[in-house]
Amino acid sequence: MRKILIIGIGAGNPDYVTVQAIKALNQVDVFFIPDKGVDKTALQRLRKDICERFIDGSDYRMVPVPIPTRAAAGQDYRGSVDQWHAQLADDYESLIMEELGDGECGGFLVWGDPTLYDSTLRIIEQIRAEGCALEYDIIPGVSSVQALAARHRVALNRIGQPVLITTGRKLTEGFPDNLDSVVVMLDGDQAFKRIEADDLDIYWGAYLGTEDEILVAGKLSEVMGDIERIRRQAREEKGWIMDTYLLRKGGKT
Amino acid sequence: MRKILIIGIGAGNPDYVTVQAIKALNQVDVFFIPDKGVDKTALQRLRKDICERFIDGSDYRMVPVPIPTRAAAGQDYRGSVDQWHAQLADDYESLIMEELGDGECGGFLVWGDPTLYDSTLRIIEQIRAEGCALEYDIIPGVSSVQALAARHRVALNRIGQPVLITTGRKLTEGFPDNLDSVVVMLDGDQAFKRIEADDLDIYWGAYLGTEDEILVAGKLSEVMGDIERIRRQAREEKGWIMDTYLLRKGGKT
Ligand SMILES: C[S@@+](CC[C@H](N)C(=O)[O-])C[C@H]1O[C@@H](n2cnc3c(N)ncnc32)[C@H](O)[C@@H]1O
Ligand SMILES: C[S@@+](CC[C@H](N)C(=O)[O-])C[C@H]1O[C@@H](n2cnc3c(N)ncnc32)[C@H](O)[C@@H]1O
Repeated sequence: MRKILIIGIGAGNPDYVTVQAIKALNQVDVFFIPDKGVDKTALQRLRKDICERFIDGSDYRMVPVPIPTRAAAGQDYRGSVDQWHAQLADDYESLIMEELGDGECGGFLVWGDPTLYDSTLRIIEQIRAEGCALEYDIIPGVSSVQALAARHRVALNRIGQPVLITTGRKLTEGFPDNLDSVVVMLDGDQAFKRIEADDLDIYWGAYLGTEDEILVAGKLSEVMGDIERIRRQAREEKGWIMDTYLLRKGGKT
Repeated sequence: MRKILIIGIGAGNPDYVTVQAIKALNQVDVFFIPDKGVDKTALQRLRKDICERFIDGSDYRMVPVPIPTRAAAGQDYRGSVDQWHAQLADDYESLIMEELGDGECGGFLVWGDPTLYDSTLRIIEQIRAEGCALEYDIIPGVSSVQALAARHRVALNRIGQPVLITTGRKLTEGFPDNLDSVVVMLDGDQAFKRIEADDLDIYWGAYLGTEDEILVAGKLSEVMGDIERIRRQAREEKGWIMDTYLLRKGGKT
């Protein structure tokens, strides 16, 4: 039997790592490290740093996993993702069977929390569904949503009210009715520019938890242009960006 | 200047504590420990255990904070909570000024993540708004939402879809349109019994991360009765319960 640990390492600050994650890191024989190309080298480095800092000894291997590029989504976003996952599952399965001996433990280091907008869990389940004997476990981690709220010192919810976590793609449909707190992730197109901004505050953060962290907060109508400019500059300088934001209707609390 | 650290300690498992939280714990001179009566003694013990386990030395004090009972909410839930917070802010302010010397650091140990359905942040901001000179910081922690998803090994979101985090009180208005993933917290009345159950799966967890953890998952219509029974029994035995659940439309992934 082989075992896989899907380990949330937190979203940016190595100090976000939990005691549970440190224990898990120390159980892993082989880390599978997705290789997403040059623009993500900073994240690769952070993964390596975490292993070096928190694992006793150096009794583990790192195996890069080549990641196929996803077909452009077009109309069928879900379809293109499903297809991509199927491809990934095949690749991972061969790699796991090749690299991981019986009784050994494989590890995936997942940015933030593994249950929020991450494919690792689905890929492992798909491999199992295809008949591959794998045990697996998930170690929660501090998500970028929590890093955002903590760094801005703002609660995610207003008192007794819900909070929606969504994507830039979904936000373009408009700010949801009946809600006052919406966290937006995976927004490459600054969807906040295309919604009704009246009465909305924004708490925006990029590279949260890292040395390059940028925070901007204010009335959406007033700071929207600043965020756009700051985001563009940062992205040009570093070659990549990760940002997320909370939109809040009706005030801070 | 006095400093306050609002420290998320994770929702149940002491191993959910982060490296950042451990560093923060070790900076605190005085912990303010809300005293919510007998039913929560298990949580009190967990807080003490975390301090003993993760703080080097014993160079800190624990100060209990008596918590006034909140007036029954009636029609005006927000009003009753606001009033209660104002009262709490007054009590905390006197206590902080009494117990915390200039240059000292006070700490609040918050269950789960401090930015999700927790009042500590608002109370500290209210004290500051009243003119009390306090610096403060928030340390994120693994929330019960993440513990739930990790223990059930289920993603919070379906691919590319949003997830709503809400309360039992709000869920009684019905399962939200246009959403397929809803996490429910603060549900003392099992609101899941009063919504249209067709096509919904439930992933329910109580005492997550603790030795007494209970997990139930299945079609809502089929397991609803079991959950009700298990919940009632557990609550009778222990005298208190903390539970949360994910409702999912349209399948696991
Ligand atoms: C594929 S999702 C992964 C989310 C991750 N599992 C989590 O729990 O945060 C990537 C998105 O997360 C957000 N994100 C992740 N890390 C971030 C960071 N350090 N700063 C700002 N946003 C971040 C961005 O919105 C990005 O588009
Ligand atoms: C006042 S809220 C605090 C939430 C906390 N800040 C967090 O991040 O999880 C309390 C609610 O959180 C949920 N909860 C907290 N800890 C839990 C646990 N260990 N197991 C199940 N539910 C929990 C329950 O829904 C409970 O009603």
